[in-house]
Amino acid sequence: MKDFIFDVSTRILFGRDQMKNLASEIKKYGSRVLLSYGGGSIKRSGLYDEIIKILEENNIFYKELSGIEPNPRVESAREGVKIIRENDLDFILAVGGGSVIDLSKLVAGAVYLDCDPWDIVIKKAKIERALPIGTILTLSATGSEMDRGGVITNPETTQKLGFGSEYTLPKFSILNPELTYTVNAKHTAAGIADIMSHTMENYFTLGDGAYMQNRLAEGILKTCIHYGPIAMKEPENYEARANIMWASSWAINGLLSTGKATGWSVHAMEHELSAFYDITHGIGLAILTPRFLNHILNDDTVDMIRDFGINVFGIKASEDKFNDAKKAIAQLHIFFEDDMNIPMTLGEVGIDDKKLEAMAEAAARHAGGSIRGVVELKKEDVLEIYKASL
Amino acid sequence: MKDFIFDVSTRILFGRDQMKNLASEIKKYGSRVLLSYGGGSIKRSGLYDEIIKILEENNIFYKELSGIEPNPRVESAREGVKIIRENDLDFILAVGGGSVIDLSKLVAGAVYLDCDPWDIVIKKAKIERALPIGTILTLSATGSEMDRGGVITNPETTQKLGFGSEYTLPKFSILNPELTYTVNAKHTAAGIADIMSHTMENYFTLGDGAYMQNRLAEGILKTCIHYGPIAMKEPENYEARANIMWASSWAINGLLSTGKATGWSVHAMEHELSAFYDITHGIGLAILTPRFLNHILNDDTVDMIRDFGINVFGIKASEDKFNDAKKAIAQLHIFFEDDMNIPMTLGEVGIDDKKLEAMAEAAARHAGGSIRGVVELKKEDVLEIYKASL
Repeated sequence: MKDFIFDVSTRILFGRDQMKNLASEIKKYGSRVLLSYGGGSIKRSGLYDEIIKILEENNIFYKELSGIEPNPRVESAREGVKIIRENDLDFILAVGGGSVIDLSKLVAGAVYLDCDPWDIVIKKAKIERALPIGTILTLSATGSEMDRGGVITNPETTQKLGFGSEYTLPKFSILNPELTYTVNAKHTAAGIADIMSHTMENYFTLGDGAYMQNRLAEGILKTCIHYGPIAMKEPENYEARANIMWASSWAINGLLSTGKATGWSVHAMEHELSAFYDITHGIGLAILTPRFLNHILNDDTVDMIRDFGINVFGIKASEDKFNDAKKAIAQLHIFFEDDMNIPMTLGEVGIDDKKLEAMAEAAARHAGGSIRGVVELKKEDVLEIYKASL
Repeated sequence: MKDFIFDVSTRILFGRDQMKNLASEIKKYGSRVLLSYGGGSIKRSGLYDEIIKILEENNIFYKELSGIEPNPRVESAREGVKIIRENDLDFILAVGGGSVIDLSKLVAGAVYLDCDPWDIVIKKAKIERALPIGTILTLSATGSEMDRGGVITNPETTQKLGFGSEYTLPKFSILNPELTYTVNAKHTAAGIADIMSHTMENYFTLGDGAYMQNRLAEGILKTCIHYGPIAMKEPENYEARANIMWASSWAINGLLSTGKATGWSVHAMEHELSAFYDITHGIGLAILTPRFLNHILNDDTVDMIRDFGINVFGIKASEDKFNDAKKAIAQLHIFFEDDMNIPMTLGEVGIDDKKLEAMAEAAARHAGGSIRGVVELKKEDVLEIYKASL
């Protein structure tokens, strides 16, 4: 196990009855709030009205940053910084899914820097302090509610890139599973694929002795596999929504990667799909993952993939390790396709072979020449995985 | 899943090379340190000298509280409070296992109260603030390095009771698995039994829908079962010591109990054994747990205990649920006895039938009349479990 520091101080307020704590949590940090959110869903659900009432009753001043996009764009961050500066705001309340929270993290850091927010993402500038952030989560997927990072898109440069800072960890997050009852089947499935992908990116490593972490990862994968289909069939099943929501936070908050060197491979490849075609991130991850595992299956990785099948899907170990590993990959594909109704080819989400070469080149370039995950992926490898996903 | 708040901000510095951060971590909080520790083991190992050197090189003033007992006694807390007040200290560095850390938490809170430290334990006084605490862990067992609680013994009243406060969570903990290489076989085994017992106290609940938490608990139990025997045979196996150490923190830091109502049963019964006979806590837990599970096995609990056997020990499910559950209990007993060399009867640790009645009465009384865990245990139940353990 490698040396590591684990330091995740986000206060999680989980359950049906936590909005009563919203005002007191905000007041620990500030009194002039940027309320950031996406489209109109929080207005349709009544959540927006509930929040405004709490803010007003508690004399908390606020301004709004609305319309943050599903793959959030750097323009929204520029707008957020402007609103904060003009109104001397001291706290960000991000209400939504990962896109809103990710974008809010960039705003929180950019407000103290004399540069364009995009400079942070491309590492020309570094966050040295940030406004405190609280979140109210409405979609179980990215884990942004309990981690330091975010992913931002720049349409001008066709780039979708991650950033992170020790200062952008949310101070508190309110997780009410009921707020995800209205998430439709497609986005429920995409969210679960995202959670599982985070878990697998941390799980698939070799020879690091992080045994406990891998058993915990398997527990999170089993949770997704158990409750995913239930949430699809019964959108208002509280236990299903609650388990998936709590799993989303633990898949990526750092626990599963403690003691490991994790180089995320599928995310690096998927980011190009979303950047070039604006597809739903989780769907792209689901499509690529079985093809990725199939591509990296070799003498070094066969035991790792086979253990995944045995411990997560309960496949029976046989004498033929490669066959067991292939079964594991097939099970994952079947789960996404049959249980989660995810379109499992690029063609079904509107991606043909025209830009595969350009995306593969960009994926390798953004990773610094090649993607150095559990197995190194050069541009040619990425292209092969894309082609296998058509 | 029940509503909950999860808020664990202890900064964990894990691995071989973290002492380089000790001075900077202390200086975030104070400059005048109470260095608390137990017997002479940290002097024999060289750890004491290493710490003193770091404190002196960084101009950090310190006074020592030494000789803290394995079942830490309230007298040591009185002494600690006195030393802090006389020397105007502002930080506690606890170096040792759970006993030293538990006792240091009581000191940290008592120093701000105008009462005897024991009043906190018996809830006549309440901690409203506390000195900041940092820890250097030398024994994997109690999880005190990443939680709020402690257990203190009062020999005058033959009481061993728990206490806790939101203010006594350690600010940082340095976890170097190498520091546990010198822990002997008996205490290695007792520590693992303690970790497993914490996990099981959180795991064995009914009907709360905390599915993910139970899968994580099984991951921690599997880690103990996998690495326990390795650590016994190869005391300097880094991966074994590292996995066990990291498991100790997660068994009890609050994650496994999120969304659940957990009423700890075996701990309540074991505390009387340690209070009356001063036996090693983990050994007492190991002896009692299989008898406890056997005692509570009924139509309501059979599936829960059977799942434990299937998911943790890999027993094959049969048509006879009760037989499966009994197999699970037997496997746990065999693991403690054969793999961990734990004496599995009270007789072997010097407890005969003379005080069973008095201990059962005390266990029920300290729990407020009966122990309200997964199954309610009245005095008669406790007595029966003690007798089955003779």
